[in-house]
Amino acid sequence: MANNAPIGVFDSGVGGLTVAREIMNQMPNEEIVYFGDTARVPYGNKSKDTIIGFSRQIVKFLRTKEVKAIVIACNTATAFALETIKAENDIPIIGVVKSGAKVAAKATKNGKIGVIGTEGTINSGIYTSYLKQWKDNIQVFPKACPLFVPLVEEGLLYDPVTIEIAERYFSELKGHGIDTLVLGCTHYPLIRHTLQKVIGDDVQLINPAYETARYLRRVLMEHDLLHEPAKTKEHLFFVSDGAEKFKGFANTILPCKVQETKDINIEQY
Amino acid sequence: MANNAPIGVFDSGVGGLTVAREIMNQMPNEEIVYFGDTARVPYGNKSKDTIIGFSRQIVKFLRTKEVKAIVIACNTATAFALETIKAENDIPIIGVVKSGAKVAAKATKNGKIGVIGTEGTINSGIYTSYLKQWKDNIQVFPKACPLFVPLVEEGLLYDPVTIEIAERYFSELKGHGIDTLVLGCTHYPLIRHTLQKVIGDDVQLINPAYETARYLRRVLMEHDLLHEPAKTKEHLFFVSDGAEKFKGFANTILPCKVQETKDINIEQY
Repeated sequence: MANNAPIGVFDSGVGGLTVAREIMNQMPNEEIVYFGDTARVPYGNKSKDTIIGFSRQIVKFLRTKEVKAIVIACNTATAFALETIKAENDIPIIGVVKSGAKVAAKATKNGKIGVIGTEGTINSGIYTSYLKQWKDNIQVFPKACPLFVPLVEEGLLYDPVTIEIAERYFSELKGHGIDTLVLGCTHYPLIRHTLQKVIGDDVQLINPAYETARYLRRVLMEHDLLHEPAKTKEHLFFVSDGAEKFKGFANTILPCKVQETKDINIEQY
Repeated sequence: MANNAPIGVFDSGVGGLTVAREIMNQMPNEEIVYFGDTARVPYGNKSKDTIIGFSRQIVKFLRTKEVKAIVIACNTATAFALETIKAENDIPIIGVVKSGAKVAAKATKNGKIGVIGTEGTINSGIYTSYLKQWKDNIQVFPKACPLFVPLVEEGLLYDPVTIEIAERYFSELKGHGIDTLVLGCTHYPLIRHTLQKVIGDDVQLINPAYETARYLRRVLMEHDLLHEPAKTKEHLFFVSDGAEKFKGFANTILPCKVQETKDINIEQY
């Protein structure tokens, strides 16, 4: 596998761009092939079998682009499909859960960690099991927050309605006295300032997107797969629907300019 | 085509159950085969080509159940796919837009009609063009309300947050002095009491689900396809994901008890 091959990154839609952004910031030499499954978004309320089927199609597509590693930049897809995809592929496959869980387990002082995410991620229990791998005497308080994704996609990042919804979702978590909160959905870093305000400054927010990019860097180094410095590089963006809308959103999030996004028929893969 | 064949009804998810409910209430002899595309919900923010592709697969599936007519119980799918599906099929195909538009055009006194729906339905302009077919000197004020569907699916039917969001969406409509408001999304009848409170009692709400069932009855009569009275009858429910969750929701909406919902792989059709 050539070092200068791109890294595949996929998500149900735009959320995974927060992971792509961290990779671009931390590894400016790397090239990314991003796929957003905008025709079938959201993943959070769909079943395990459905998400495994979707993930397989996307991985098949990304491998046609000769990627050297794949990041599943979606918590739900990581929760449901990471192990299957890993078993079926011979390149490094990285999910967004493990690194975030590790850092959260290290960060907590009182051993009480909150985890927020979609229904799929929360009901899968994946964060709880990873967190308990790192530290035995940890108490995990998971909470599904299904309205955050539509609120983010509506652009209500600092809105009183988002604050009101966050207050409801967090009232239980606050009662448990958590000192650490894992943002278990790739959309949530976009409202981290609002979430911090509601949960309070004494609770540390953990952003798995950031930790995942750090972990990816280590994995690429171990496999001797880091990209060499290059004069020009190009990121590629694909979606299953609504390329223009995606491009607009991507350009508000990413540190680079997205010139083009292509629509593909993912059901063919 | 046998009179006693069932009627096919489909939607992106649970919203079309409001149409199924009206059909059950108005035509208690009829049997329904319902399909909810819960693996690919929502349709409202997806493109025309994608929605036509999804609709074709669903119609192909419904026709394996020998349905005598098909109701597209989804405003977005009606806006994007009705004409294509009609042209490709030899049984009556009915959308949810036409009848609602007709009744709204008749109901307005000052000629100012508001239409609310998903981005897809609103941007398609379908209600505006149907409304203008019925009356020339009509002013139509369309407004996309993308947060209503997730709020309904979260069960916040009478919630202060839903009221707050409705007030924002409606502030412009109120300024235009509309006297009639079309609920252009099948989820919206479930929050019609909240919407009525916010828009005010002097504005008449039009529920296309009700009007569509009335229109379906006329079409079946014209084609001599009404079901004969029967001792036993059975409605069938299929989804592309999450059968159990769907069944729970269906049992809160429908006048009959849903015993079973089956998961099928719609991408095979």
